[in-house]
Order: sequence, then structure tokens, then C-alpha cells
Amino acid sequence: MKIAILLYDEMTGLDALGPYEVLSRLPGAELRFVAETRGEVRTDTRALGILADAALDEVDAVDLVLVPGGPGDARVRERRAVLEWLRAVDEATRFTTSVCTGSLILGAAGLLEGRRATTHWAQLDELRRYGAEPVQGRYVRDGKHWTAAGVSAGIDMALGLAAEIAGDDYARMLQLGIEYDPAPPFDCGAPEKAPTHLVELVRGTLTRS
Amino acid sequence: MKIAILLYDEMTGLDALGPYEVLSRLPGAELRFVAETRGEVRTDTRALGILADAALDEVDAVDLVLVPGGPGDARVRERRAVLEWLRAVDEATRFTTSVCTGSLILGAAGLLEGRRATTHWAQLDELRRYGAEPVQGRYVRDGKHWTAAGVSAGIDMALGLAAEIAGDDYARMLQLGIEYDPAPPFDCGAPEKAPTHLVELVRGTLTRS
Repeated sequence: MKIAILLYDEMTGLDALGPYEVLSRLPGAELRFVAETRGEVRTDTRALGILADAALDEVDAVDLVLVPGGPGDARVRERRAVLEWLRAVDEATRFTTSVCTGSLILGAAGLLEGRRATTHWAQLDELRRYGAEPVQGRYVRDGKHWTAAGVSAGIDMALGLAAEIAGDDYARMLQLGIEYDPAPPFDCGAPEKAPTHLVELVRGTLTRS
Repeated sequence: MKIAILLYDEMTGLDALGPYEVLSRLPGAELRFVAETRGEVRTDTRALGILADAALDEVDAVDLVLVPGGPGDARVRERRAVLEWLRAVDEATRFTTSVCTGSLILGAAGLLEGRRATTHWAQLDELRRYGAEPVQGRYVRDGKHWTAAGVSAGIDMALGLAAEIAGDDYARMLQLGIEYDPAPPFDCGAPEKAPTHLVELVRGTLTRS
């Protein structure tokens, strides 16, 4: 099972590294972090550097590709080399996936046209720009194209992928291994659960003109 | 707010990178990944390389230190340089924290003696070796020493820390920003929720002789 996770400057770390923790433990997984060039990639906070072990042109056939989101997505949506690579690998994937605004990158590559898809709650309408139908959901499946909601939702999607790939019991075992029995101190992770002033504050921070 | 997250060979990535995603967004946060030497650190799967931007001897006063777990913890518990660094920074921290078996490293440094603490469910009894009182819980607070359960529990602890440091509203805003409204496809993240054969399988994989 060849898995590629795309990295790019100003991505959001957890978008990629939540799913990594699950997908890298699938039976026979060969997971590689890829970027336009090998080497260090800095996330949106600049505090985290992750290594891309392969350049895009070193990776031409994968079973699963995952595209994270983050403020850097806007630049990546204009990088022809990345969009062409995504279109090329998508032809042979079993799963083409994204987390958060990674779906906008899939959209820019033309891979979500006519499909149901999701993204971070504050960016949902942006999907229309690429001919996708925005759907609220922790993760949304349309055939082999799976898209997750904001940041942490990638962990849930990865467990769903694990079940599809290796069976329910295997996915449950992975969940137990990472002790994913969430109990956040607040119940404020979705806009319908949050006070309006916080929803507006986050929307203001995250949406670009 | 100076924050240091320890990195070491064969650590579990999400232990560090879940909390990173929350803590790095605190007001005035200066978060650095530190290791015995600067440069690349490989996680337990070998598929992920994270950059340590500072060596231990470059970091001598932090407000918050976080120690992740992972199979490499056993070696770190015997690294005098790391244990001495932890003891030294602990003297001035506002919070000394761990995720998963990172608490065994804090224990080996002598920082959990007589304290209530937690770790990955499969390793809970190991805490006694260091004079700590094992407590089941998503995260456990004993004064300034906070310890989280396995891997993904660090996200919950980080939100608790965010509330303590920057107030409940700020923590809620961060939770909404990372859309942390968990909805895993299975409810199997804790041993009491999992079938016995899976509990034994995971225990066998994770416990060392």
C-alpha cells in the first residue's frame, strides 16, 4: 500500500500528521511525505519543520494520496507542477483524499468537479468555485474521493480509510493503539456548538478576501 | 510564553504534534522543538522526520515543557543528559507535561515521585516504578505536572492547558479553529470499550518485557 502525503509551505501540521499516525500503521504501508522539492517544509506557525523525503517527480504511482490544508493552500492552488502531479496520481489511486482546505487544492486540480466534498467549516462555500457540492460532515466520501473537515477531522477520516482498507477490526485496533477516545474539556469544536462571537472571530482569522 | 517540546528517536509523532497544533497558537507563544542535538529526528514508524530547531543546551528557561511518548522512551529514560535537562527546566516551568509514555521519562527524571499521573493505558502500572500513583484519565493534573493518556490524548490536555493559560474562551476558539469535534467511525478508543482480543493484541504490541 503506497501512501503519499503532500507537504507544502504554510500548511497546517496536524492536517497531515493526524492521518499519518493512523495510515502509516496499515499492513504493508509504505508512507512517504512528498513536496515539490525534498527537504524541510515549514508549517503555518513556522515553529514546525517536517521533512519531505521525496520530490513529486520521484513519486508516480500511489494507492492513496492525502492533501492537507492550511493558509499556504492559496499558493499551491496556483502551482501547476503540484496540480499536474495530483491529476496524474489520481488516475491510479484507490483513494484520493484531503483534510481541511486541502480539498480546495484537489478542487483546483479539477478533481472534485461534480462531486460532494467538504472542507473547514469557515471555507465550505469556496468549494463551489471548483464545481464541487459543499457538504457538511466530519468526512465526506464520493467514490474514491474522500474529503475531511477542518484539521483534526483527518484523524476520523483516516480511521474510516483504515476500515475500508484493512477491515473494521484493524481500524478499531489502531484507534485503541492511539487511545483515540476523545474527551476535550469543552464542546466547542463546530460552529453550531460555539458562541457566535467565537465563530465570527475564527471566521475572520481564517477566511481570506 | 516559552514552550519546549522534546523530540527523540522513535518517539510517536502525534504525541508531540497534536499538542503543538494547540499550544503554538497561544498568545505570545514561542514554541521550539528541542532534542539532544539539532536537526532531523525520526519517529517510531521511520516515515516521519521532524526538525529539532534547538539542542537541549540552547534552551534553559521555559514556561512549559512537553515530553511525548513512543517506543524510544526506554532509551531516553537512560539518557542522563535528557533527564538532567528535564530536572533543570522543571525548576522554573509553569507547566511540566507529558503525553503517553512521556510520563515514564518524567518519572525517570524523578519528577513524578509521590504524584498522581497517567500514561498510555497499556503502560499504566509502569508509573509505579518511579514512585508515581497511576491514575486513569484523559489527562491528570497534579499541581503543575500534567500528564496525558495515550497519543491522541495530548490534544485534550493541550486544550486544558490553553484554558488555564489564556482562559476558557481562548481555548474554545482554538478548538473551533482546529474543528476538534471528534466523531470517529468506531467507539473503540479505550480498553473498556474494546473487545478483549483487540485489547490483548495492542497490549502485546506495546508492552515491552
